[in-house]
Amino acid sequence: MIGIAVVGYGYWGPNLVRNFWETPGAQLVSVCDLRTERLSGVQSRYPAVEITANFDEILRDPRIDAVAIATPVSSHFELAMRALQSGKHVFVEKPIAATAEQAQRLVDEAERRRLVLAVDHTFVHTGAVRKMRQLVDDGLGQVYYYDSVRVNLGLFQHDVSVIWDLAVHDLSIMDYVLPAKPVAVSATGMSHVAGEPENIAYLNLFFENNLIAHIHVNWLAPVKIRRTLVGGSSKMIVYDDLEPSEKIKVYDKGITVNGNGNGHGNGNGDKKYQMMVGYRTGDMWAPQLDMKEALGIELREFISCIENRKTPTADGHAGLRVVRILESATRSLAQRGQVIELDYAGCTA
Amino acid sequence: MIGIAVVGYGYWGPNLVRNFWETPGAQLVSVCDLRTERLSGVQSRYPAVEITANFDEILRDPRIDAVAIATPVSSHFELAMRALQSGKHVFVEKPIAATAEQAQRLVDEAERRRLVLAVDHTFVHTGAVRKMRQLVDDGLGQVYYYDSVRVNLGLFQHDVSVIWDLAVHDLSIMDYVLPAKPVAVSATGMSHVAGEPENIAYLNLFFENNLIAHIHVNWLAPVKIRRTLVGGSSKMIVYDDLEPSEKIKVYDKGITVNGNGNGHGNGNGDKKYQMMVGYRTGDMWAPQLDMKEALGIELREFISCIENRKTPTADGHAGLRVVRILESATRSLAQRGQVIELDYAGCTA
Amino acid sequence: MIGIAVVGYGYWGPNLVRNFWETPGAQLVSVCDLRTERLSGVQSRYPAVEITANFDEILRDPRIDAVAIATPVSSHFELAMRALQSGKHVFVEKPIAATAEQAQRLVDEAERRRLVLAVDHTFVHTGAVRKMRQLVDDGLGQVYYYDSVRVNLGLFQHDVSVIWDLAVHDLSIMDYVLPAKPVAVSATGMSHVAGEPENIAYLNLFFENNLIAHIHVNWLAPVKIRRTLVGGSSKMIVYDDLEPSEKIKVYDKGITVNGNGNGHGNGNGDKKYQMMVGYRTGDMWAPQLDMKEALGIELREFISCIENRKTPTADGHAGLRVVRILESATRSLAQRGQVIELDYAGCTA
Amino acid sequence: MIGIAVVGYGYWGPNLVRNFWETPGAQLVSVCDLRTERLSGVQSRYPAVEITANFDEILRDPRIDAVAIATPVSSHFELAMRALQSGKHVFVEKPIAATAEQAQRLVDEAERRRLVLAVDHTFVHTGAVRKMRQLVDDGLGQVYYYDSVRVNLGLFQHDVSVIWDLAVHDLSIMDYVLPAKPVAVSATGMSHVAGEPENIAYLNLFFENNLIAHIHVNWLAPVKIRRTLVGGSSKMIVYDDLEPSEKIKVYDKGITVNGNGNGHGNGNGDKKYQMMVGYRTGDMWAPQLDMKEALGIELREFISCIENRKTPTADGHAGLRVVRILESATRSLAQRGQVIELDYAGCTA
Repeated sequence: MIGIAVVGYGYWGPNLVRNFWETPGAQLVSVCDLRTERLSGVQSRYPAVEITANFDEILRDPRIDAVAIATPVSSHFELAMRALQSGKHVFVEKPIAATAEQAQRLVDEAERRRLVLAVDHTFVHTGAVRKMRQLVDDGLGQVYYYDSVRVNLGLFQHDVSVIWDLAVHDLSIMDYVLPAKPVAVSATGMSHVAGEPENIAYLNLFFENNLIAHIHVNWLAPVKIRRTLVGGSSKMIVYDDLEPSEKIKVYDKGITVNGNGNGHGNGNGDKKYQMMVGYRTGDMWAPQLDMKEALGIELREFISCIENRKTPTADGHAGLRVVRILESATRSLAQRGQVIELDYAGCTA
Repeated sequence: MIGIAVVGYGYWGPNLVRNFWETPGAQLVSVCDLRTERLSGVQSRYPAVEITANFDEILRDPRIDAVAIATPVSSHFELAMRALQSGKHVFVEKPIAATAEQAQRLVDEAERRRLVLAVDHTFVHTGAVRKMRQLVDDGLGQVYYYDSVRVNLGLFQHDVSVIWDLAVHDLSIMDYVLPAKPVAVSATGMSHVAGEPENIAYLNLFFENNLIAHIHVNWLAPVKIRRTLVGGSSKMIVYDDLEPSEKIKVYDKGITVNGNGNGHGNGNGDKKYQMMVGYRTGDMWAPQLDMKEALGIELREFISCIENRKTPTADGHAGLRVVRILESATRSLAQRGQVIELDYAGCTA
Repeated sequence: MIGIAVVGYGYWGPNLVRNFWETPGAQLVSVCDLRTERLSGVQSRYPAVEITANFDEILRDPRIDAVAIATPVSSHFELAMRALQSGKHVFVEKPIAATAEQAQRLVDEAERRRLVLAVDHTFVHTGAVRKMRQLVDDGLGQVYYYDSVRVNLGLFQHDVSVIWDLAVHDLSIMDYVLPAKPVAVSATGMSHVAGEPENIAYLNLFFENNLIAHIHVNWLAPVKIRRTLVGGSSKMIVYDDLEPSEKIKVYDKGITVNGNGNGHGNGNGDKKYQMMVGYRTGDMWAPQLDMKEALGIELREFISCIENRKTPTADGHAGLRVVRILESATRSLAQRGQVIELDYAGCTA
Repeated sequence: MIGIAVVGYGYWGPNLVRNFWETPGAQLVSVCDLRTERLSGVQSRYPAVEITANFDEILRDPRIDAVAIATPVSSHFELAMRALQSGKHVFVEKPIAATAEQAQRLVDEAERRRLVLAVDHTFVHTGAVRKMRQLVDDGLGQVYYYDSVRVNLGLFQHDVSVIWDLAVHDLSIMDYVLPAKPVAVSATGMSHVAGEPENIAYLNLFFENNLIAHIHVNWLAPVKIRRTLVGGSSKMIVYDDLEPSEKIKVYDKGITVNGNGNGHGNGNGDKKYQMMVGYRTGDMWAPQLDMKEALGIELREFISCIENRKTPTADGHAGLRVVRILESATRSLAQRGQVIELDYAGCTA
């Protein structure tokens, strides 16, 4: 049995508690939050679980093998680092830390101590995203573009921009789905409330080959949209997370490029290229998806990684890659879309 | 009666011919195309209309007061300029010319000669776009953003990028709907067929106030999307051109900003701003729209402008503003999204 | 404080327990179920609430003023009758009883004892259905038709047909929304599993005036549809319960009838009526709806009715009217759609 | 070459003329209409085609092998019968005649004279309906139900009810798609304009096995719906004719029936059947459809049937079967849904 402590019992913590409670191989030992009034809910529902407002107790407790951190982003680094330094495996909410430098230090610390460091990129454990990865690996052909829209009338965050709140989902999904990693990023956006961070933003991700990615996030949209288009040379995907069951649709559509069109000398300028690019349309197919709760799958994987010293799907490196983009995008945002190279030097994955 | 000649009988020309034929006050005199085999269709359907492959005949014909040009973009400038120089009013397909410099010269020539110069920004004559303009003028409050997506599996153009083919629609609509004009543009995009122009692109438009605009165009999408979101401080619009009748939806939604949230002294940093921004949700309303054919409305306006020496809704200046953005966006595209200032010096409107 | 016992802790009982727990003025005293293993969940979540497998304890308990019954339909009558005979107010799951005769006896008993008898027609407490009622009362004009489709791949019930499982919702909504009550019913349907009740059915409801109603229910549909059309002489409603927020759309559409079209003597038979019926199309409007949980509203109303001796929105008479239709529809189903008159003789409302 | 005359140049006639003009093997000789003013349109567009207001000329003309009739229903029988008696092959608009008796006489006359008699059930030549037929033949398993909705704010007909105007489409599609033929019909409906035929109607079709069909048609709906559900034991289809390209969706969904569930003696009444019927959900698939114009395909088939003395897909028998149902449904409508047996005695197919 892997002893678990959950730190932070605000918005997401209760989901961690409920799921760890039901995860085979996990023993939920303790829940920690500074706001002790929140912890009464834990006591009434899980009388066997201990509660505390003292993080040091968690660190000292030999029954606790792993710590799950669901506190505000600004505290991720300190709490995760102290947990690692106390020999605990760590599971952190996304984004893994507030800066790439912090994320890098967590990655290094976990590797030095051979501890499991996982980041809660929940979406990569959904049936829809796993199916999308499988299609990209086998069937889509060369990936041409990745385009995602995540907008709605959303709760304004006051400490972070909409990029850290919404685009983090798209970046973590994209990091998992695409084999290639972006080499540069640019972002534009706007704040419409004086003194608040940007509530609308557009991100461009540049890659080494002719792949392009783009993410649109907006807290101030009249309608909710959660749609990703992935275009490949053989097939194309529409991933609509608001569809109740047919979240992934695969289109056997695209273009065919015919090199013979390059005729010359016939003097018919209009026609000479018109044979070069042709449409191709075919069936559409919506695969049956695994609808199990992603968080449950994710926590079982975390426990299994601890037991077998394996690397989780969303490890510290994945967390670092996402934070590196968020950080660079934030810099670009302040410079009207200046392209920022993503420095992978020293990046161990 | 205003005598009309239509020049170019390819994709769009037949629509001009059919609509001019039915426009009160217009007398369709002649149709001109170099490809004489195309003109047989004119003869069989409109026996009273003359046909010619010789543009000079059009220019010399005193019965012809106005020339409508529906040829490839590269020839717009020369044909329009010669028509103006022959004293003819001119109606040109969009984009008005291949460069801003050409467009400026057309504008200048038309003004010098007090001739009507109209550009065929057809969409601005639809019931949907006119309603959107009316809502922006009265009801939306301060406009926060303009976001448009125009994607589908579309015909690849070989001489111009997807920006000139698709974004030109969005730019002409935006030019009409928004009172403010952009001061800078950036664009990113990609070609996925070697030797061809970009088939996917993202445009950012920057304004002097805190308005932001963004346009996504793509010839290689598995599904067709034609959707514009316009967010304002009082209301928000969704314009979906694929809806058969409810193309415009107005949402009484948004945020309310409460300055009193700036509480101090309670030491509760998390909470102090949380009262500042609140949701506001209300009714949605889809106004009944005028469904008359936009081109018919547009041509009647063109005739009326000639008769009454008035300025058309989409005049040469509008055509110039759109081409200026297209041209700058194309430059930005080649520089990975470099921001290009839109120089309005010398721009007479 | 009104003391409450919930009887039956299967599918719906936990929702009653949770909502009564939070209803001001209600004191949840006890939960009763024969399956004692289910009751452990009550104890751990609501330690202050007593549990029992003995219904007689409930009846004898002077702290209990009202009993909420969420057991299988076949037991509704006996449990509700015994509760009424013990002087308890009663809240029963829909349908109120297994036969109209049972329902009538419950109504009579409650009236004789001046006890509140409510049936859990939950939908009539949703914002969408209340808005629909309001529109029918004021704005729709004369109601022409009520058409409802409620289909999906649903759990097969083994003791009752799809009518008792799904159409009961539509009948309870229709009973609330329409001022007129049907005078006859017919139903067709089919079972596709030998030995099981009908899994697809179509109901016709006949009224005294020129109103018609129709309900389609199906447990074996590939897609989920929850849509009701209500046509009136002035406006028409589409109620789509699967829409996340715009569940009610009001269309200012219809026909105009022009009596002058009745010309004669012109010998033009084709034309003479063609002026009589014209289209009328106008705006569409989706009113903002109260999204509060219907069950909470309903239980507060139940408590308030007990406190003030008022009649609930869905009282025993409403429950009886719905069961009368279900019962007659079931008879019609066995006779290939034979029309069954709905006998309201002796019906006290 | 098969010489063709088109009789009736109103709403549908121009489509026949345009398509026959382009049909290989067909020679459009003449167009006939009593309203000579309409025929001027034929002359200007098809100068080589003769026009006449005299049907007898058509009958006498030896160049004319076949007559296509697109006049009001009430004249179908007389015109078609006279054409057959003159030795012409006949193509008639749907419904083939105003009564089953008339339809039967046309069928008999055509068979006696070995002439091709085709009815214009256009939909059965669309890619969507042909795909649906193919799926029913191979893949759907046993067909359980056929459910169709065809509603919108439609033009009121003054001589026929909505059944003859809209349900005729569904009946002709169903006749083609389902191998089994209905043995009885019932219909309910209502007129909401005094003196006019029914504008809303519901049809039940009964079959010999446990298949059920239902059609809902309505001229007075606020929204347009064109959707057919076909449920089978192995797969289910949704056919939505308003979808621009994915009109047919095939769901690998249904139920599995487990005979072992019939356990007894365990005293657990609730559970004993619960294993009997289980859900089965799988992929959804939207096959690529042939999008060619159905009328063109249909007319080529008509010409080919004349040339090769073959039977068209929608022959006189199909026309008769549909009219028989329309006629019986109309009788049922007047009797509040009385079931009418469909007499196939003497029916030759």
